[in-house]
Amino acid sequence: MTETQPLAVVLLSGGLDSMTAAALARAQGYRLLALSVDYNQRHRLELAAARRIANALGAERHVVLPLDLTAFGGSALTADIAVPKSGVGEDIPVTYVPARNTIFLSLALGWAEAAGARDLFIGVNALDYSGYPDCRPEFIAAFEGLAELATKAGVEGHPFRIHAPLQHMTKAEIAAEAARLGIDAGLSWSCYDPTAEGLHCGLCDSCRLRMKGFAEAGLADPTQYAVIP
Amino acid sequence: MTETQPLAVVLLSGGLDSMTAAALARAQGYRLLALSVDYNQRHRLELAAARRIANALGAERHVVLPLDLTAFGGSALTADIAVPKSGVGEDIPVTYVPARNTIFLSLALGWAEAAGARDLFIGVNALDYSGYPDCRPEFIAAFEGLAELATKAGVEGHPFRIHAPLQHMTKAEIAAEAARLGIDAGLSWSCYDPTAEGLHCGLCDSCRLRMKGFAEAGLADPTQYAVIP
Repeated sequence: MTETQPLAVVLLSGGLDSMTAAALARAQGYRLLALSVDYNQRHRLELAAARRIANALGAERHVVLPLDLTAFGGSALTADIAVPKSGVGEDIPVTYVPARNTIFLSLALGWAEAAGARDLFIGVNALDYSGYPDCRPEFIAAFEGLAELATKAGVEGHPFRIHAPLQHMTKAEIAAEAARLGIDAGLSWSCYDPTAEGLHCGLCDSCRLRMKGFAEAGLADPTQYAVIP
Repeated sequence: MTETQPLAVVLLSGGLDSMTAAALARAQGYRLLALSVDYNQRHRLELAAARRIANALGAERHVVLPLDLTAFGGSALTADIAVPKSGVGEDIPVTYVPARNTIFLSLALGWAEAAGARDLFIGVNALDYSGYPDCRPEFIAAFEGLAELATKAGVEGHPFRIHAPLQHMTKAEIAAEAARLGIDAGLSWSCYDPTAEGLHCGLCDSCRLRMKGFAEAGLADPTQYAVIP
């Protein structure tokens, strides 16, 4: 990595998807500014995973920004609402956090503009996911348009690119991509509702999608689940 | 105010504009959820003004959310960069905070969706302002479109309205509107660079625009300025 390589701000939750998106950004030659948000989420364990990943990928800087979204609530991840354990359904589940990716991309945009970066990476995918509206391609495209109008850089003719390289990949393809890039999937954390012992619960949507991804990719799953459904 | 009146989330910086926008929302019959962001801004004195205003307007709730944007810097309000004092110019000044209104509207959107509100108010105006890109009507319109794509409420057919009632008003018209609504402009705080004694500096863009507004409206200016240019 040299000073002449471009900077990218990467949203790094600590999950398998954001880890793979960050590894892809690095493989494409970007120097990484990794952004994680400590939103007082139920699964704050993911922040330790984000630290491990930022370190493994040699991020130039990793900011873990405190932003207490429990002030607003409205989600099983930020309020006293049970995390569903019966399997991925058709509807948008209660683990949806209102406007989360809009908030996170806005923060990434602010950092990118301040740092002189033009590229943002986010690990959303719209195939093996929970149906969150702010993971869909039309949302990402709309945010890219907004970013141009919202910023000094944008109005001065230097628009931002929002990269969502996993957009059309299945979880199995994402797990395979992580393996191909040589980053240890065991560094990442997916579970919404960790056990007291710090294990993946095995039953929440996020655990089920993770498990399915490794299985379908024919890869060893490095995760310790409390329960295998 | 009764339970049957709709809720609105109002971005309340504590300045004259956001105070007037909030007073207009109340006059239109909304119950107010007031949101201020403690972004470690140079002029954190404005947060005390926001508290006074939320109280005077009988807000149902006032959240002052800590979000330390000095982690990113890039602005005279969030980094060790001097606040310009020589008058409002043509270019976007260094007091521009990268992506600030995108971040603030995203947070307001998150709260609105969690609380079941469909209306957001923001006190931007694009006449007597510092040329910030995220104060322009095209930005506000784009954000409204994004909000529909970004949220569960939006995709389920309950879009959000972003109200920017001061959009086309001069600062004098805003000062006159505050007076008409019977809210004391002396509650508000505009200065970017308060003196050690807690006075408005009188020389920053924000002080100059405030001063000009009261003067052109023919209203007594309740502000104590350290210097009158």
